[in-house]
Amino acid sequence: MDKYFVNLEGETPKYVIITKHIKKLIDTNNIEDGEKLPSIRSLSKFLKVNNVTIVNAYKKLQNEGYAVQKMGSGSYAKKKDITKNFRKEYSEALKKIAGKAMQEYIDFTGETPSNNFFPVQSFKDVLNEVLDRDGAEALIYQEALGYEGLRTSISEVFWNKNIKSDNILIVSGAQQGIDIVSKALINTNDSVIVEKPTYSGALSVFKWRRANIYEVPMEENGIDIDKFEKILKKNNIKCFYTMSYFQNPTGMSYSIRKKQQILNLAEIYDFYIIEDDYLAELIYDKRIEYKSFKSLDKNDRVIYIKSFSKIFLPGIRIGYLIPTARFKESIENSKINTDISTSSLMQRALDLYIRKGLWKDYMSNLNEIYKSRYLLMESYIKLYLEDKIEFISPGGGINFYLKIKDFIDMDSIQLFRKAKNKNVLITPGTLFYKNPLEGKRYFKIGFSQIDEDSMKKGLNIINELLE
Amino acid sequence: MDKYFVNLEGETPKYVIITKHIKKLIDTNNIEDGEKLPSIRSLSKFLKVNNVTIVNAYKKLQNEGYAVQKMGSGSYAKKKDITKNFRKEYSEALKKIAGKAMQEYIDFTGETPSNNFFPVQSFKDVLNEVLDRDGAEALIYQEALGYEGLRTSISEVFWNKNIKSDNILIVSGAQQGIDIVSKALINTNDSVIVEKPTYSGALSVFKWRRANIYEVPMEENGIDIDKFEKILKKNNIKCFYTMSYFQNPTGMSYSIRKKQQILNLAEIYDFYIIEDDYLAELIYDKRIEYKSFKSLDKNDRVIYIKSFSKIFLPGIRIGYLIPTARFKESIENSKINTDISTSSLMQRALDLYIRKGLWKDYMSNLNEIYKSRYLLMESYIKLYLEDKIEFISPGGGINFYLKIKDFIDMDSIQLFRKAKNKNVLITPGTLFYKNPLEGKRYFKIGFSQIDEDSMKKGLNIINELLE
Repeated sequence: MDKYFVNLEGETPKYVIITKHIKKLIDTNNIEDGEKLPSIRSLSKFLKVNNVTIVNAYKKLQNEGYAVQKMGSGSYAKKKDITKNFRKEYSEALKKIAGKAMQEYIDFTGETPSNNFFPVQSFKDVLNEVLDRDGAEALIYQEALGYEGLRTSISEVFWNKNIKSDNILIVSGAQQGIDIVSKALINTNDSVIVEKPTYSGALSVFKWRRANIYEVPMEENGIDIDKFEKILKKNNIKCFYTMSYFQNPTGMSYSIRKKQQILNLAEIYDFYIIEDDYLAELIYDKRIEYKSFKSLDKNDRVIYIKSFSKIFLPGIRIGYLIPTARFKESIENSKINTDISTSSLMQRALDLYIRKGLWKDYMSNLNEIYKSRYLLMESYIKLYLEDKIEFISPGGGINFYLKIKDFIDMDSIQLFRKAKNKNVLITPGTLFYKNPLEGKRYFKIGFSQIDEDSMKKGLNIINELLE
Repeated sequence: MDKYFVNLEGETPKYVIITKHIKKLIDTNNIEDGEKLPSIRSLSKFLKVNNVTIVNAYKKLQNEGYAVQKMGSGSYAKKKDITKNFRKEYSEALKKIAGKAMQEYIDFTGETPSNNFFPVQSFKDVLNEVLDRDGAEALIYQEALGYEGLRTSISEVFWNKNIKSDNILIVSGAQQGIDIVSKALINTNDSVIVEKPTYSGALSVFKWRRANIYEVPMEENGIDIDKFEKILKKNNIKCFYTMSYFQNPTGMSYSIRKKQQILNLAEIYDFYIIEDDYLAELIYDKRIEYKSFKSLDKNDRVIYIKSFSKIFLPGIRIGYLIPTARFKESIENSKINTDISTSSLMQRALDLYIRKGLWKDYMSNLNEIYKSRYLLMESYIKLYLEDKIEFISPGGGINFYLKIKDFIDMDSIQLFRKAKNKNVLITPGTLFYKNPLEGKRYFKIGFSQIDEDSMKKGLNIINELLE
């Protein structure tokens, strides 16, 4: 108890002094992570203060993430999130190679198409055309919903006018889409269902909203519907976050039947579907039909989010969102409260780019290139790794999600570290689960930044490491 | 009670059916706003269901904003926020004039400098120079902290290198700055102090974080320190949001002494200061010295937010943020979770614009133009309105905040409506208070979009309406 002693004289309120003192003890490891803090009664007695002072101090510690309260059992010290550590290690490894030449590293972590294929020159031309055409307008005008022209293009080119331009909201990429939808829909203690595993950027947003997060395992054609419905029966679910095509990280896509089942459940159990349609342009397997949740939605249940930055120029930070009628106003207000509006010039340039048919050309070009890479990657994985890993071919996208076979005595974090030492970068599955440990047997490899030679070399190295 | 009857057969969970039914009753005014809902016991008896079913239904209503629970007294119906209505009327009036020619309306609601003064041509030239210089980089590369070059420029030009470029985070405007800082600092039930009145966009964000909001009245040289400290003494305050120069809407600026007092209090009561430095470039009264809270901060207490969109080209959506060391990591993560990063091309262009000295030229030009407008406006207000309104000259910025004298039998919402009918637009004070009614005697008029003729004409009309 002695370490809790602190001088309480002076004009600072006593509870603030006590809080500061305990924070210091935790930061310096004089109180261990998870250590039980003294009871309110005993600490107030020891420091000769009111019970209320200690209650306030513990509340403040809790607010600042330095303590957790367990019902009926007292307060416990909490050091900053420990699972964060690997995330840090991972992002530092990525930063390290960001400046390096392609030849030095074999980078299987790429999340966007390679720079080599980006239509930089034609986009520059379009940008200049817009500056000449619109002048000041393009730099000054702010439109809360987004540039009218772009919204019309999206309505015509991507939705065959089935979605009106007034129902389209331009956002600064899919991540912002998820953030503003969450702000409009999800409050503290609301319940959200996500796929397991899922995109870590979405998990972070839901955690930040202090939602209760339920995970439902992904299967080959979508989530496990039985487990999904069990959760729906027991809990008041607000929304379900899903990536309908080439789900990140598993690469799996929903069957149309499963989408319809989920839409029915949404109506029965009164929840909403947040559809993150992030990669559907890259379908290689012709058996996969493109029909989004949104296009199947008859009951105003689906909020649709689409990123252009994921597959086009990442630096332009543009995407769009189609709200449900019910949340239209609150989602639009959420956008305004988040950053007023998205940069107008880029929207105008993208609009012109789409109108000129350049978007379509770029996509079909990209589709062709990546389809052959995909097939190569698939065959090399089979050739080099088949006895050590299990996987299902996604039929599209830019990633494979591999499971290390049970008999191999190495998890994906160990593999990540060993591979990194050999200048090969992979993404361990731990990043995609609420409980990171559940991803220990999995890793993701993407081929978007990799040519054939590096592909072979890299997979060979992974093979050797898994021996 | 009869109106509560609903058929509970079918596969939809009973509590969902009941919730839907009650929502409909509220939406259709069959249950009034504020009407007490039946007790759990009586409704469960009436509908022949378990108590738990009604508890779940009421919880769901509450989550969706259709009911509030009052401790020990039961649940009450809630219609969507009624104070929203005027906000809507106001923004619709603004939208209506957005497309019109300047001659048709006299617009005192302008929040940004007039388009006529924007350096569109020189910014376009700079944009093209960047596209030629950086090519693909400018459209592809994403930097979480923001473009290194721009962060260095900001460090050198605005902070004399006293703030390192690593401590600068580029954001998409001040509104985003407030949003991401709030996400990193403020959780449900945390307490925040704001100035009264204050910027409505900040109020919205704090409400959305479900913070407890305390207001402290603004005086001529900053907030009322006694009232401020009283709140600090009684409550565990997490942060204080302030606009240090030409506060929105009052136009008042903090004395250096008051800033120092607040910084001391921050250390004593362990809270943080969010400084929104949105207009300090426009100082006309030479007695006002520029020294931000941040520059006076010795104890890592101030999070500084600066918008470039407010005074420069609104469409470029760029600002920056200087976190405290303690929240640096969580604020940076908050930015990533919000929208990954800000559009790179615009950052590069702004950087080059600053490096070429064009920013400085533009600012001194703007300062000169607006100083003379400010003086004109001040003299015309005195000439036309002095017997009907009270005000304090701000000595800078682009607004005046006027109080309608007590003997006049008209509030600012009435004035807004009457003025609008005469094609004159003003901003009623009601938008800037937690309790809108407190702003009923005030209105804001800005001169950024107005030439001398319209100024005279518009003030004359306001004078006549107040007769």
